Amino acid sequence: MFTSRAIGFVGSPYKSTGEIPKGLGAKHAAEGVLKILPEFEVGLTDIEGFSHLFVIWEFDRSDRVELMGKPPSDNRAHGVFATRSPRRPNPIGLTVVELLRRDGGELHVRGVDMLDGTPILDIKPYLSGVAMEKLRRGWLAEAEARG
Amino acid sequence: MFTSRAIGFVGSPYKSTGEIPKGLGAKHAAEGVLKILPEFEVGLTDIEGFSHLFVIWEFDRSDRVELMGKPPSDNRAHGVFATRSPRRPNPIGLTVVELLRRDGGELHVRGVDMLDGTPILDIKPYLSGVAMEKLRRGWLAEAEARG
Repeated sequence: MFTSRAIGFVGSPYKSTGEIPKGLGAKHAAEGVLKILPEFEVGLTDIEGFSHLFVIWEFDRSDRVELMGKPPSDNRAHGVFATRSPRRPNPIGLTVVELLRRDGGELHVRGVDMLDGTPILDIKPYLSGVAMEKLRRGWLAEAEARG
Repeated sequence: MFTSRAIGFVGSPYKSTGEIPKGLGAKHAAEGVLKILPEFEVGLTDIEGFSHLFVIWEFDRSDRVELMGKPPSDNRAHGVFATRSPRRPNPIGLTVVELLRRDGGELHVRGVDMLDGTPILDIKPYLSGVAMEKLRRGWLAEAEARG
């Protein structure tokens, strides 16, 4: 296995978890900056050609693992792997962002849902989605239907 | 930072990297099994309601970092964060799979592109994509256009 290391840090308007729109279905339109460390900047070469990116990051302020938990978008408990809870066996977060522009080692993006200062582990190009008509959204669709 | 730990392992038809359809735009239709360790199985509760999952896994057979490299789908070098190269600062892979069925701790899925025995770090529900008409695919689109 490996020990994680930050390739950069998130500049986000969210300073505390209470400010972040919560839940599996929450919409994230906040703008932020992915500040990549100078030693990794060359790894961003040609990234500006992609409109959307996967950002893989660390829940660095999560302090425990909880295999079952109640997410903000439901009043029932679900397995951690069926939610986006921060209390995961590996504290890894995943966010799809829209790349607005690049300034050297700074990627200006829309769609951040991380806390300010969150360590970034990886960035990958986002290439395609699953067609909406083929998607089933499990307990979230049920929770939404219940109101 | 954290030290990664496997929550399970991938059962895949691919025993060597040469067998895996390569490149950012490769289509992956292979079926495989995500075998989750018994101690983490309760974390799968309610996962069967989702049609598609993100699988976060470890490039456990990658032996170095390469910030610039030539991907299989192009004859030009690109930054590692604009590719899916295994030679990443954090050796983390990401795959979207379709969940076919669950048998206890075994998730039968379509769309694996990992080697057999790959350690799984996390699973998250896949909820929505970016509309194709809003997506730009950077150097990959250019490489495809060049033929």
